[in-house]
Amino acid sequence: MRRYVSDTAELTEEYGIHIGRWSQYRDLGRLPFDAMWCVIPPGGSSSEDIHPEVEFAVVTRGRAVYESDGTKVEVPTGGVILLDPEQRHTIHNLSAEEPLTILSIYWLPTDSGDGPADA
Amino acid sequence: MRRYVSDTAELTEEYGIHIGRWSQYRDLGRLPFDAMWCVIPPGGSSSEDIHPEVEFAVVTRGRAVYESDGTKVEVPTGGVILLDPEQRHTIHNLSAEEPLTILSIYWLPTDSGDGPADA
Repeated sequence: MRRYVSDTAELTEEYGIHIGRWSQYRDLGRLPFDAMWCVIPPGGSSSEDIHPEVEFAVVTRGRAVYESDGTKVEVPTGGVILLDPEQRHTIHNLSAEEPLTILSIYWLPTDSGDGPADA
Repeated sequence: MRRYVSDTAELTEEYGIHIGRWSQYRDLGRLPFDAMWCVIPPGGSSSEDIHPEVEFAVVTRGRAVYESDGTKVEVPTGGVILLDPEQRHTIHNLSAEEPLTILSIYWLPTDSGDGPADA
């Protein structure tokens, strides 16, 4: 059993927020996805992001607001948001006191070959 | 953007706890893993489980204690525990008041063919 927590992860600053890539863990073995911790400070927002990977994001602390093309979705602690490939998105932390932490899991879709899927 | 939360999931009773398989969601698309919500009532424990899949479990509410072969590991909300294939495990909720909710992500390892990996 191996345990991973964001509080002791090594974080860097990217996308206007704090990022902890799971490649820092040497004992993971092969996973069918990549992962990163994202920590958004109180009142903060990420810069807009867009990428070819499917993203499966679990809110692990606080409450996230995901914004995409003018639509906003609120995700409580423990909730998951699933983003399609090439879906533009920004993450907001509306709390003035609590950091927002997300475990982002992502992979390149391979439904029909190596390229991104259509849907 | 599609949002998934355990509070509105359909749960059944298995392994002595409440289980919500993600196969209930029709709009997921293809994921490189299976998933289930696990809800363990206050003071409860799962029955012992063992399976050929790798398990990547995210604690989404409460604090979990994972027990395997006499070793106990405590995992706070937002923490992840990674279990090897065929690793026996039991989950305990030590809280007398709060339910424990876990998002369990699991897949068959395919490092060298279809069988479980050695490590």
